Amino acid sequence: AGRGRVELLKTDCIICGVHFLPDATPRKVGWKAVARTLSDFAAMGGLPRHLLVTLAVPSDCQMRWVEDVYRGVNKCARAFGCFVVGGETSSLPAGAPVMISVAGSGSARRSQVVLRSGGRPGDLLFVTGRLGGSQRGRHLSFMPRLAEGDWLSRHFRVHAMMDLSDGLAMDLPRLATASKCGFRLDENAVPRSRGVTVQEALKDGEDYELLFAISERSSRRLIAEWPEKFPGLKLTHVGALAEEGAQGLSGGWDHFRERA
Amino acid sequence: AGRGRVELLKTDCIICGVHFLPDATPRKVGWKAVARTLSDFAAMGGLPRHLLVTLAVPSDCQMRWVEDVYRGVNKCARAFGCFVVGGETSSLPAGAPVMISVAGSGSARRSQVVLRSGGRPGDLLFVTGRLGGSQRGRHLSFMPRLAEGDWLSRHFRVHAMMDLSDGLAMDLPRLATASKCGFRLDENAVPRSRGVTVQEALKDGEDYELLFAISERSSRRLIAEWPEKFPGLKLTHVGALAEEGAQGLSGGWDHFRERA
Repeated sequence: AGRGRVELLKTDCIICGVHFLPDATPRKVGWKAVARTLSDFAAMGGLPRHLLVTLAVPSDCQMRWVEDVYRGVNKCARAFGCFVVGGETSSLPAGAPVMISVAGSGSARRSQVVLRSGGRPGDLLFVTGRLGGSQRGRHLSFMPRLAEGDWLSRHFRVHAMMDLSDGLAMDLPRLATASKCGFRLDENAVPRSRGVTVQEALKDGEDYELLFAISERSSRRLIAEWPEKFPGLKLTHVGALAEEGAQGLSGGWDHFRERA
Repeated sequence: AGRGRVELLKTDCIICGVHFLPDATPRKVGWKAVARTLSDFAAMGGLPRHLLVTLAVPSDCQMRWVEDVYRGVNKCARAFGCFVVGGETSSLPAGAPVMISVAGSGSARRSQVVLRSGGRPGDLLFVTGRLGGSQRGRHLSFMPRLAEGDWLSRHFRVHAMMDLSDGLAMDLPRLATASKCGFRLDENAVPRSRGVTVQEALKDGEDYELLFAISERSSRRLIAEWPEKFPGLKLTHVGALAEEGAQGLSGGWDHFRERA
């Protein structure tokens, strides 16, 4: 993308009955469609810029509903400095589920791109925010952690990062595997939404918080600087990456999967 | 996009029952999904590069069918120098129609971008290829006119251009309106596919040929150079842009619409 930056492209789609219920507020549906795509940029330390929005709706869908979806789309785009520059509305047969696909283009400093695969044994694992209970409403109105992902990747050597879409119990093993590591998780340290059990915090999914791995040394400065930079958002040390398969840690993984 | 180029983004989606029938060859379905997006780049004098492919299929869809769609997607991408760099497969409820959305990013020289809106009264109108009868099969296997669009916009001052998706009878008025012009069309000059009537050539749609407006002066050189550059592809002068509403030409438009 020029000037030491790489172009990032990401697409994500949500489907009625899978990612939202038919009675969901249409503005929130539009927000969620955009926020999910943006969350993937956050997880790479990138910034999105231009969005293409495809809305496929059954022929019996009300115009008012469609307009409200677009209002939500635009609200989320604006909130994060993005522009909807194209897309289309397609007609589906009556009764077919609404589908909203959002493709985004953006960029990241080449030196700043974070993948899932760069974690190292000994890295500490952190998550932003609180996990679990997203289905009570937050899955439609969450804030993609763009500022946080950008700041982290700009000021620290984040070795591996992802956004939590399927729950820590599913996503942490993915990050560890991509990094060819095992992991330890302190389940009781996992930050929970109000009224949520440990198992719900691990398994509910749709948290869209950041999970990342960083050296123990860097983490000291991180812990010191975070509260001043993001006073409203919890940052929690939940575990560490470890040698792959060493010291029963791949067993630890299986054990973890069984319980999750 | 750097170095005097602009970034182009385009998304397009096709839906089973609307853009292809359930018994269509899946490789051709994949080809069409990509080719439609590429055709829009051609119409702007741009070149696509990276593609994101979203395939939403009902849960009762066969894996073999899905794999063949992706084969067609990749075949078309490769044929035109593009790379599928991401996307996803989503599951729809059983019975819902398959949907394939293809988002593309690419670029064009800033000086070379052609819109629909730059046509001028007196410009001659040309179309590539032959029109009509696309439903007999060509709508699934057409070639996006990327080399042609790139060459045209690189070597000529093309004032306005678009790809013909809804038929010349629908699309020419759009180009003329965007250019604030009227138009004259010589219906009998319209190049027809074998066995197709004039009305079918005008109205069938899904031709994905280029329609463009160029000054009379430039058109002489164009007519001289085209056959050597693209020996296998017809280029036909079908009419001209005219003053908006002047000399009964907006009447000409209405008349045209009625007959079409």
